[in-house]
Amino acid sequence: MAVPAERLQPLIAILRGRFGDRLSTAAAVRRHHGKDLTFHPGHDPDAVVFAETTAEVSEIVAACAAHGTPVIPFGTGTSLEGHIAALEGGVCIDLSRMNRVLRVSAADMDATVEAGVTRKQLNEHLRATGLFFPVDPGADASLGGMAATRASGTNAVRYGTMRENVLNLTVVLPDGRVVHTARRSRKSAAGYDLTRLMVGSEGTLGVITEVTVRLHGLPEAVSAAVCSYPSIDAAVDTVIATIQGGVPVARIELLDALTMAAVNRYSQLDYALAPTLLFEFHGSERGVVEQTETVQAISAELGGSDFRWATRPEERSRLWQARHDAYFATLALRPGAQGWATDVCVPISRLAECVRETMQDLAGASIIAPLVGHVGDGNFHLVYLIHPDRPEELAEATRLNERMVMRALALEGTCTGEHGIGYGKIAFLEAEHGDAISVMRAIKRAIDPGNIMNPGKILRR
Amino acid sequence: MAVPAERLQPLIAILRGRFGDRLSTAAAVRRHHGKDLTFHPGHDPDAVVFAETTAEVSEIVAACAAHGTPVIPFGTGTSLEGHIAALEGGVCIDLSRMNRVLRVSAADMDATVEAGVTRKQLNEHLRATGLFFPVDPGADASLGGMAATRASGTNAVRYGTMRENVLNLTVVLPDGRVVHTARRSRKSAAGYDLTRLMVGSEGTLGVITEVTVRLHGLPEAVSAAVCSYPSIDAAVDTVIATIQGGVPVARIELLDALTMAAVNRYSQLDYALAPTLLFEFHGSERGVVEQTETVQAISAELGGSDFRWATRPEERSRLWQARHDAYFATLALRPGAQGWATDVCVPISRLAECVRETMQDLAGASIIAPLVGHVGDGNFHLVYLIHPDRPEELAEATRLNERMVMRALALEGTCTGEHGIGYGKIAFLEAEHGDAISVMRAIKRAIDPGNIMNPGKILRR
Repeated sequence: MAVPAERLQPLIAILRGRFGDRLSTAAAVRRHHGKDLTFHPGHDPDAVVFAETTAEVSEIVAACAAHGTPVIPFGTGTSLEGHIAALEGGVCIDLSRMNRVLRVSAADMDATVEAGVTRKQLNEHLRATGLFFPVDPGADASLGGMAATRASGTNAVRYGTMRENVLNLTVVLPDGRVVHTARRSRKSAAGYDLTRLMVGSEGTLGVITEVTVRLHGLPEAVSAAVCSYPSIDAAVDTVIATIQGGVPVARIELLDALTMAAVNRYSQLDYALAPTLLFEFHGSERGVVEQTETVQAISAELGGSDFRWATRPEERSRLWQARHDAYFATLALRPGAQGWATDVCVPISRLAECVRETMQDLAGASIIAPLVGHVGDGNFHLVYLIHPDRPEELAEATRLNERMVMRALALEGTCTGEHGIGYGKIAFLEAEHGDAISVMRAIKRAIDPGNIMNPGKILRR
Repeated sequence: MAVPAERLQPLIAILRGRFGDRLSTAAAVRRHHGKDLTFHPGHDPDAVVFAETTAEVSEIVAACAAHGTPVIPFGTGTSLEGHIAALEGGVCIDLSRMNRVLRVSAADMDATVEAGVTRKQLNEHLRATGLFFPVDPGADASLGGMAATRASGTNAVRYGTMRENVLNLTVVLPDGRVVHTARRSRKSAAGYDLTRLMVGSEGTLGVITEVTVRLHGLPEAVSAAVCSYPSIDAAVDTVIATIQGGVPVARIELLDALTMAAVNRYSQLDYALAPTLLFEFHGSERGVVEQTETVQAISAELGGSDFRWATRPEERSRLWQARHDAYFATLALRPGAQGWATDVCVPISRLAECVRETMQDLAGASIIAPLVGHVGDGNFHLVYLIHPDRPEELAEATRLNERMVMRALALEGTCTGEHGIGYGKIAFLEAEHGDAISVMRAIKRAIDPGNIMNPGKILRR
């Protein structure tokens, strides 16, 4: 379904008059903005506008609303479930030029940024303050996009996800009005939690143009450790005991034997070809030693072997190299293949079962899919390695993915811990939420009655 | 505005037929359910039903919906802004008999309870597990009520509020359907965050009947400390330095000189009549010593004096007695007076200013109002001591309260950090949120088009 020319042409004329060469209808620009890095087919928007202020976003959205034309917000294009595809055409608002850090408060440990500021840019800006922004989804995504997709990552077990780290948002509503979802105080009991409603709404309820985030103090000391285990169960039991024991672990990542083989080969390392946990500890000098010793003792008790640890930065990086390289090492397992990254999240008590059965499925499959997990949260990823020209492999990955997601749901988990729904996981969202989908639909209709905001994402048209 | 008899009478007949003597229209029962402990005038519901299951709540709500009659959920009646007042009459659903702990998972560190389970009951139930539920709003409130009001308290600086500690809710929607807001996984990126939407919605979007909460490991060691300061600013600067320094303080409470005078007199203590901070530290044996020493050093640098600390339980209790007694000690300052408890929350960098100006206002006032604050979050309370028979005192408290709330808003804060809106703070909510109120209103209309759920709370009729 495309926007009819009689609506689209006058709209583009208005926007071109207003924004000049900051509006583009060039095929390459449109293609770039409608296609993410995944296997999801791209859908080009009809035009791309590079906005520079909240007021401009408001103008663009109001014009699109007046012409019944879809609006698709775009940060860095690094989302994974087709979030940016212009399924029905429309106008893509590229926010990457809204890249100013507006304020930082060391006393309040918070910062306000425009939506196009990326997490690395923010952390670079914070370098002299002793503070950092912890949420790290891998890609150097924009803060606006991270808020919109409720991004997460390796640090979430200690520092939380975007859900916990956003204090306030400036949002352009689907009619062009600008609202703030909250104040800057740490907590509030004042009315409906509009901040959390917008976090994870994937551009379907408005365009996020400014984000106020919590910052955290750089730890006085950091240490890292690696340990391999005889089984996934032993590794997961170590995670459970670590968290139950109150160790405030900053990162705890699981890599399966296949991933370890991939990183060994890719980076000439010599790790055991076994399920492996990578830990990072943040705290005082004494504190990180204590944490590391506690986890070493737990690991030993549960059959962990080859426990290595390090406190100096370069040694830590070397220990964590396996994790940093995992994605590219994985792709190198099968040159020419494309990676389809997917994720689920389950209660940690069900994690070993979910991983074990998933790996049994994979053992009988015609494609391979290395596994990496933010296991402190019960969240893990597979990357299906499929050849773009072989539809039977996409079909196989689709079948395996469906089995994994339905398994996670049966184990009281969710169809996605951090990648979001986009248009790739709508059917699973419906399976997960049942009747509650009608509540989401009612909210969507109430806030965006014209269904112009990123239509076809999260909810079906 | 009351429910017309031609709608009410058939509804009550139906409910009586179904629930027998679990439905009451006795004046005393109705009065008890329509009046909280504050100065807000009570409004009796027309009937009270004591529900025992989610299915029963669903039946009651569906019947009320069919008869266009308001529904007011009731937990323990300990909310503070008139949340339970039946402003338009209707049926109060008392959930206190839904008091079963349904499951506890030590591995997942979570529990699911019926809405009527109180926080003390849950912690009693957890006694043998090494886990605890940290959110402590003072009153022994029900978990359903705490979720509905986004409750918070002294532990929030370390463990978060209900916003961070609820994983999933079972909710009866205004048409009687039963939905679950989420799964049991620690995090999810699957669709709109219905959990956070319901947390803090004060019964205006549905009736919460079951709550799944996060649990936390009991700390290996606990220590407490008390220190007095030459000024509010010095105390607040200590708080800022403590949090910036990464000390994972579990509690950090401010009491002003007036409150200290009240507790000294009430409990025969000898604390300095100065702004005072009470600390609690949780961690390993070594960790709490380290935390305490760090805070002692910070305090000394900022002019703190008489730093006392303790690790043994009975000593800790003695140190914290001032805080535990604060409310009743405060009331004893003026026998016969009623306490009007109010709260605001600001960014911590604005806290000293907000407190200082508020105390200047009080210095020139005809009534007194001791101050206690969860200052790690920038949240503080006043208790205006007013005589119930003197309307001029209520007027004075109203004037002072308005000045304090508007000051908090001007300092980028919120009109309530933890008490909520009820019908007591609607005007302030409007001042705080501006145009965003229209989004809240749209959500309310979408989910509760008949406006039967606790009407007149959060949003005006």
